[in-house]
Amino acid sequence: MGKKQKGKASVLFECPPLITAAASVVGKKEGEGPLGRYFDQIEADSMLGKKTWEEAESELQTRAARLALAKSGLSREEIRYYFGGDLLAQLIATSFGAVNLEFPLFGIYGACSTMGEAMGLGAMVVEGGFADHIMAAASSHFASAEKQFRFPLEYGNQRPYSATWTVTGCGTVVISKGRENGAQENAGQENRAMAKITGVTTGKIVDMDQKDSMNMGAAMAMAALDTILANFRDLGVDETWYDRIITGDLGQIGRRLLVDYLLQAGHDIRKRHLDCGIEIYDSEAQDTHAGGSGCGCSASVLCGSILPKLKSGEWKRVLFLPTGALLSTVSFNEGKSIPGIAHGVILETPKGAR
Amino acid sequence: MGKKQKGKASVLFECPPLITAAASVVGKKEGEGPLGRYFDQIEADSMLGKKTWEEAESELQTRAARLALAKSGLSREEIRYYFGGDLLAQLIATSFGAVNLEFPLFGIYGACSTMGEAMGLGAMVVEGGFADHIMAAASSHFASAEKQFRFPLEYGNQRPYSATWTVTGCGTVVISKGRENGAQENAGQENRAMAKITGVTTGKIVDMDQKDSMNMGAAMAMAALDTILANFRDLGVDETWYDRIITGDLGQIGRRLLVDYLLQAGHDIRKRHLDCGIEIYDSEAQDTHAGGSGCGCSASVLCGSILPKLKSGEWKRVLFLPTGALLSTVSFNEGKSIPGIAHGVILETPKGAR
Repeated sequence: MGKKQKGKASVLFECPPLITAAASVVGKKEGEGPLGRYFDQIEADSMLGKKTWEEAESELQTRAARLALAKSGLSREEIRYYFGGDLLAQLIATSFGAVNLEFPLFGIYGACSTMGEAMGLGAMVVEGGFADHIMAAASSHFASAEKQFRFPLEYGNQRPYSATWTVTGCGTVVISKGRENGAQENAGQENRAMAKITGVTTGKIVDMDQKDSMNMGAAMAMAALDTILANFRDLGVDETWYDRIITGDLGQIGRRLLVDYLLQAGHDIRKRHLDCGIEIYDSEAQDTHAGGSGCGCSASVLCGSILPKLKSGEWKRVLFLPTGALLSTVSFNEGKSIPGIAHGVILETPKGAR
Repeated sequence: MGKKQKGKASVLFECPPLITAAASVVGKKEGEGPLGRYFDQIEADSMLGKKTWEEAESELQTRAARLALAKSGLSREEIRYYFGGDLLAQLIATSFGAVNLEFPLFGIYGACSTMGEAMGLGAMVVEGGFADHIMAAASSHFASAEKQFRFPLEYGNQRPYSATWTVTGCGTVVISKGRENGAQENAGQENRAMAKITGVTTGKIVDMDQKDSMNMGAAMAMAALDTILANFRDLGVDETWYDRIITGDLGQIGRRLLVDYLLQAGHDIRKRHLDCGIEIYDSEAQDTHAGGSGCGCSASVLCGSILPKLKSGEWKRVLFLPTGALLSTVSFNEGKSIPGIAHGVILETPKGAR
């Protein structure tokens, strides 16, 4: 086993890659939520000036990439690869969003865990020496997701309280080569960075035979549990190693399940757990029921509100764990369950947590 | 720019990862084609004993993974990650195919370029020291693809001559850590390997405003051209550096376009070009029109017929270039074009080509 490899599913980087820029572009509803003031751009027009919802979602990716690029101070040519994904079949938001950027592209699919997968792979590719700078991004759009997975908006379907509301938003980070031990090179970059990526725990498919597409939190909770326990086991740590464990979009029901499962396993994460889906909306005032969801949920909350707290040193170490429910209308209508997956990324303050 | 990075989109490995095992599982029609005798398993039952086509495709992935594992002599626990993808929305063939394998999973989407993307990322992760062994796989199934992208099979739609036939098949490789310069470690493994992965050229989205979903070859030809020229430019080589340049599934029309484009750019690849989609069927006798397609096409041809020729030394160096047409019924029906992407992987005989 290589020296960067820990246990069955985790890696710790010898030269942790840096998140050198981050951008979040969200919709009006997200802008009106409790985290509204943290997002870079709030789009009042849910169509973003385009003709279809899918084009609007692509535009979210394009705008977030342009903004992240501008913040990074890098030229387009310096970004070697784009690791991107979305919820739509054939990743059309990513394909059409990335076409004008002309980055070599790795299309990624992990449902709402996509940002964790993109950052994990991107960080490995940077630390492995294959790129000096990459971009990782994930987007979702309420209307394109409803169209693909649920009912026509015009139908005005009633949503149960276990349902989540797909976030309209995109979060994009630039991941850059970190500073090698003792080296002066990249020292300035490290000081300006938002966070270091010190490790990754890659999730596996967990199928709990959950068949309620209006309760995705339950489908994902066991996948989150599986990856958290793998992380603890692989690294020989427990919940106290982290200032926060931040899941993607479990929502109220998924959160309760995860907390209970972990208590049974001897881990009390209640004081240090946050869920991006719960944070992004005021569920009562905004009528979002169990919380927000979609790849864009954890990605935009990461960029808007998590990374700044790592940059400032308010949090020293965070386990960022986007959670995905692999809902397909085809397999679902054929009577199959909704499997889940969760990908963990360990983020630390650039001010030196260890 | 790191020393492994070449030009804008390519990498050359200092310690090339090895393909230590490969398995191909295909359908009856593929077994009856010109390459039939090269495939490991030919499934007479297109349902593979399952109830739906999607489950049948998942079963292709499960069987190919089990076979590749058996051939590699490794235990399931020694495979650190599974890089897999398919054509179906939300990668259901991969998710359900991988669930019983319990590998940490990176879901990949690049349409029919998926095998190139999975192998490129997998090789980087291995060479970067993050895994000693990974699995890369891609599958497609004629009936699940027709159902998703075209017409119900029962409708008996007429297919134009430019259309391709989606391959029922899965190809799976095990990629293992290579031998470091001069080291004795892994020497035996290198002798037994099927090929070395010496480099990767990652494609970008190329949109030629092609809007005919029954002529995917035309949508992909320019993407193939773009990645081939990037590969030549990045590495300072030309077509003569390769014994074969093998595209994924351009078919007859796409091949003609690619050859013409390259001739205009001053490169004559006619004598060294193969296309997996053209090779896999006898288009006249098997009524497959322009050729085979689908992620499983290039993946199964790679495992069945390309890797053995590298292992024997008949070919010293091959540019393997799966090509993808990012067809989405949603964006297509909204009047959008079909963009293409092609991911290149440089394969060399393990007997030492350089």
